[in-house]
Amino acid sequence: MTKIHNFSAGPCILPQEVFQKSAEAILDFNGSGLSLLEISHRSKDFVAVMDEARAIIKRLMNLGDDYEVLYLQGGASLQFAMVPFNLMKLESGKAAYTDTGTWAAGAIKEAKKLGKVDVVGSSKEENYSFIPKDFKIGSEYDYFHCTSNNTIYGTEMKTFPKVDTLLVCDMSSDIFSRVIDFSQFDLIYAGAQKNMGPAGTTLVVVKKEILGKSGRDIPSMLDYSLHIAKESMYNTPPVFAVYASLLTLQHLENNGGIAAAEKNNIAKAELIYNEIDRNPLFATYCKVEDRSLMNACFKLTDESKKEEFDAAWKAAGINGLNGHRSLGGYRASMYNALPLESVQVLVDVIKNLK
Amino acid sequence: MTKIHNFSAGPCILPQEVFQKSAEAILDFNGSGLSLLEISHRSKDFVAVMDEARAIIKRLMNLGDDYEVLYLQGGASLQFAMVPFNLMKLESGKAAYTDTGTWAAGAIKEAKKLGKVDVVGSSKEENYSFIPKDFKIGSEYDYFHCTSNNTIYGTEMKTFPKVDTLLVCDMSSDIFSRVIDFSQFDLIYAGAQKNMGPAGTTLVVVKKEILGKSGRDIPSMLDYSLHIAKESMYNTPPVFAVYASLLTLQHLENNGGIAAAEKNNIAKAELIYNEIDRNPLFATYCKVEDRSLMNACFKLTDESKKEEFDAAWKAAGINGLNGHRSLGGYRASMYNALPLESVQVLVDVIKNLK
Repeated sequence: MTKIHNFSAGPCILPQEVFQKSAEAILDFNGSGLSLLEISHRSKDFVAVMDEARAIIKRLMNLGDDYEVLYLQGGASLQFAMVPFNLMKLESGKAAYTDTGTWAAGAIKEAKKLGKVDVVGSSKEENYSFIPKDFKIGSEYDYFHCTSNNTIYGTEMKTFPKVDTLLVCDMSSDIFSRVIDFSQFDLIYAGAQKNMGPAGTTLVVVKKEILGKSGRDIPSMLDYSLHIAKESMYNTPPVFAVYASLLTLQHLENNGGIAAAEKNNIAKAELIYNEIDRNPLFATYCKVEDRSLMNACFKLTDESKKEEFDAAWKAAGINGLNGHRSLGGYRASMYNALPLESVQVLVDVIKNLK
Repeated sequence: MTKIHNFSAGPCILPQEVFQKSAEAILDFNGSGLSLLEISHRSKDFVAVMDEARAIIKRLMNLGDDYEVLYLQGGASLQFAMVPFNLMKLESGKAAYTDTGTWAAGAIKEAKKLGKVDVVGSSKEENYSFIPKDFKIGSEYDYFHCTSNNTIYGTEMKTFPKVDTLLVCDMSSDIFSRVIDFSQFDLIYAGAQKNMGPAGTTLVVVKKEILGKSGRDIPSMLDYSLHIAKESMYNTPPVFAVYASLLTLQHLENNGGIAAAEKNNIAKAELIYNEIDRNPLFATYCKVEDRSLMNACFKLTDESKKEEFDAAWKAAGINGLNGHRSLGGYRASMYNALPLESVQVLVDVIKNLK
């Protein structure tokens, strides 16, 4: 069987070790004779998993006790509502957002249900082909919200603005892919299913002092303070997803941490972007300076080559290369666990197209 | 190694086949060479999983096309908020609830954030030791909400009231354990982690015609209509939990369905309750007619025997027998996958205490 090169946009490839160890835990967790799926979430062994998963996040992010880490459910999409419920003031609340893609627009839509939203920067009119940078955020806003990486359009924020209010970031699709000063953020969230684990859990990292000020009667499950008080076990957590996320983060920590991952990710991105830039048969969609390390979106310059190219990458064992329906073309998602070797296989296929 | 008899209250024992097959799928899903954890939720293979999981629920419940089935996230606790968001009218909304335990009280708390709640029956003052039955629900209420089984207190509704409004039921802890006319309900929800699969997904079964009438601007992730429109994939679903739930339900369907499960559950419950009733060293907490098939809560009549009894059941390989901290004593949770043999082992330990 040909080796599969999985460029899936998410859920996506994870370290092979995560598959092995999580499958073993389903058959026998920690040598207990019980499956990970049948143990109480209040058991000593699972509480240890949750505690370590929360602790490893803080180590990787180099954050102190002023931050709390939560493993929740509902994906980034539920965060789109939780952020304004917790941070946007009930009386004359107002937040600033940038609109950099489908998910940013989704976050804006939910915030508008609870208060006033100013879109201070948008690339929507140019099909989300760049990251808007020319704006200032004053203290009149309850918070500023941005999306660090736009999977569908292949753009990524290289730096984050200095703002005179709270800085909130959806890092679902590039968390732990590059070295960042995480202490510049007041709230970070991320669906796990890219660099953090399988689908089914969502990371929230929040500075404690910002909570409890919205004046809203928040539904309990949407209330960060309540989840913090219950140490991320307000109700039954998604046990399997949290365990597999812990395995994913342990693998990251044991293999050089974020700095090593960044080095690999830059090498993979350079390999593919250099080839696309050199090759007249291919082009990218977005502004060069805003290109994502995680998702290289590109297209054929000559559509008549489509059938041949599609057959070639499929024959090479490449999976998940079709672009999102919003943009078309191709998308090579190169999350942490994707080996350089897979990108080389794709680049070879690209090179061989004549 | 002694065989483990897992009486855990949830997450709980599932069919051994579910552990085997889900572990295999993590290593190689459907012979694709890819892990279940790394495939797109939009892939043909996973869409088929979601479709079949939704279809099998309708078959097991014998429901027609006027109902929709959703696999969501957030547990029953998120449903405590979603129910009133979707069903309680914005202007002068009012709902009726029974208070039969910790989870019912949690549901009441969330509904009160959105409108008026009348608690039409409560056993709170008698430590939730019975199911209140003496009430009438008129059409002045937007809906009536009840909890079919109370895991912590070991009580269960044997029948459901006829009401002149919508009938909503939290069936988290006894769904698919007994034959019920599911068509009497307008909305049923259940956290998966008892009879339906591992923790991490939540079932919602809803009659379509009741939706879209609350007049509220519902957060998208809390809006049943939106989840229905997106065929339970509004955002990335909890892939692993949905797949393991499908395996659990296939096992149920292939082994005689709900009727066969009910027969086993009655046999298990009779075995333990008969012994407790006969044995002067033990007593149950609740009214005999309201005893749960799923969770037998009991205590020693002579506390001086505690050390001896605890040592004996642990030596017999029994796991998860301690009662919830709210009640103390012991709780034998006997979900569908628990074999009669395990109950027999427990009954033998009980009998042997002198």
